[in-house]
Amino acid sequence: MAIPCTYVITSKKSTLENGKLMGSSSPVFPSPPSANLTQDDLKKLAAYKAVEYVGSNMVIGLGTGSTAKHAVDRIGELLRQGKLKNIIGIPTSKKTHEQAFSLGIPLSDLDSNPAVDIAIDGADEVDPYLNLVKGRGGSLLREKMIEGACKKFIVIVDESKLVEHLGGSGLAMPVEIVPFCWKFTAERLRKLFKDSGCSAELRTCPEKNGEPFLTDNGNYIINLYFKKDLGDLKAASDAILRLPGVVEHGMFLDMATTLITAGQLGVTVKNK
Amino acid sequence: MAIPCTYVITSKKSTLENGKLMGSSSPVFPSPPSANLTQDDLKKLAAYKAVEYVGSNMVIGLGTGSTAKHAVDRIGELLRQGKLKNIIGIPTSKKTHEQAFSLGIPLSDLDSNPAVDIAIDGADEVDPYLNLVKGRGGSLLREKMIEGACKKFIVIVDESKLVEHLGGSGLAMPVEIVPFCWKFTAERLRKLFKDSGCSAELRTCPEKNGEPFLTDNGNYIINLYFKKDLGDLKAASDAILRLPGVVEHGMFLDMATTLITAGQLGVTVKNK
Repeated sequence: MAIPCTYVITSKKSTLENGKLMGSSSPVFPSPPSANLTQDDLKKLAAYKAVEYVGSNMVIGLGTGSTAKHAVDRIGELLRQGKLKNIIGIPTSKKTHEQAFSLGIPLSDLDSNPAVDIAIDGADEVDPYLNLVKGRGGSLLREKMIEGACKKFIVIVDESKLVEHLGGSGLAMPVEIVPFCWKFTAERLRKLFKDSGCSAELRTCPEKNGEPFLTDNGNYIINLYFKKDLGDLKAASDAILRLPGVVEHGMFLDMATTLITAGQLGVTVKNK
Repeated sequence: MAIPCTYVITSKKSTLENGKLMGSSSPVFPSPPSANLTQDDLKKLAAYKAVEYVGSNMVIGLGTGSTAKHAVDRIGELLRQGKLKNIIGIPTSKKTHEQAFSLGIPLSDLDSNPAVDIAIDGADEVDPYLNLVKGRGGSLLREKMIEGACKKFIVIVDESKLVEHLGGSGLAMPVEIVPFCWKFTAERLRKLFKDSGCSAELRTCPEKNGEPFLTDNGNYIINLYFKKDLGDLKAASDAILRLPGVVEHGMFLDMATTLITAGQLGVTVKNK
């Protein structure tokens, strides 16, 4: 890809205090934007910008999904070029583990490296307060464990992911639950948000004759859809977590420290 | 077993509004207590008393553990005798499923029978407000799902289980967690309650060379031990549930409706 782009830096905090900031003075895509960038081009733009925050000697949370994949590729590239040294990657899924391993990125986990310097990951929705919906890729639990443990969590999205309120895209908000009596738990989730016009569906695998999708932890995913604003997100989060049978949900509240958004007009960096 | 016993009924609510109350006018153990009852005798006394609340046509949550086992046995016995008819049992573990199945108790689950009339189960600790610690048998998640769904939840214990505050026995408060990076999660749990002198240990199986104990859901158990009172239990519950990696914990707050305690001086019934 060779995509022209300008940077629109909305915050003065776009450099990293700890660690070397890669390429901050020489953006990867310094030219004016083209009018015909694909969604994948935009994802790549955001991802490459985020990797500028990665420095040598860092422990890095490696996200999962089509946007994060570009960041992992870029980290692998800089490592091969010798521009990054002595890094450790903490993958947020088995899939990312495979990708990073194939790129030669040294890998570890939270048990061995509980202090993570930085994490870079995509999101399915981002509200104006940098609250997120994540996990449509199915890796929400491991992502939340790792991204909740890092000093800096950079979220990378194309502009289509920005919403006025979580659930506002009309797409799924995933909840990971134990398979035991999943219908019962799904119904309790639906009832919890009936005032928001909630519906609940088991995530299935069309490529496996509609079998339930299994997370890396062997659990199911219930997709929740909302017709109205959820209101108090922290209250909604606690209400979901209090249901026995729920393992984790896809709302990432007060976790993101930086949002990098790529759009047709350039890349925007927003710090919290 | 033929154990003499008196009943000390502390509440006027000891009869059940819905369903036939078995044997309320003819207690199983009507005589004065013996001074030499074993702990297992006491467990059986409490269990038999609880089964008096079970009527025909009920959906019954069947608990797990050494005390609940007696209740399941008794339900099977009354079914064979024709004193209970048309009941459905909802077992809280694979082990209880096997026991109930072997006794000929018709079984179902929460997906097919989401409305449970009554549940009977033991507890590891009971505080004066009928808050419980459960799950030392390892079935806390399924127990909480089923016992949280029932109209009446009868807890049966011998008097050794009564504590001033949860954690006060010095024995384990179990937390079910995903195996992924369990050391990291265990350490976060320990830190959460460091002011209560908390220590955290992975539950293992001595009979399997110290391998991690696996729950029915394929998860691990972290045993928490406290030196001091936890304080606000609801706040403690939410704090645990907010940790990604935690599936469920063994505090059952505001769930029990009736406590049946068997001691050397008789059986006590306490309603909430």
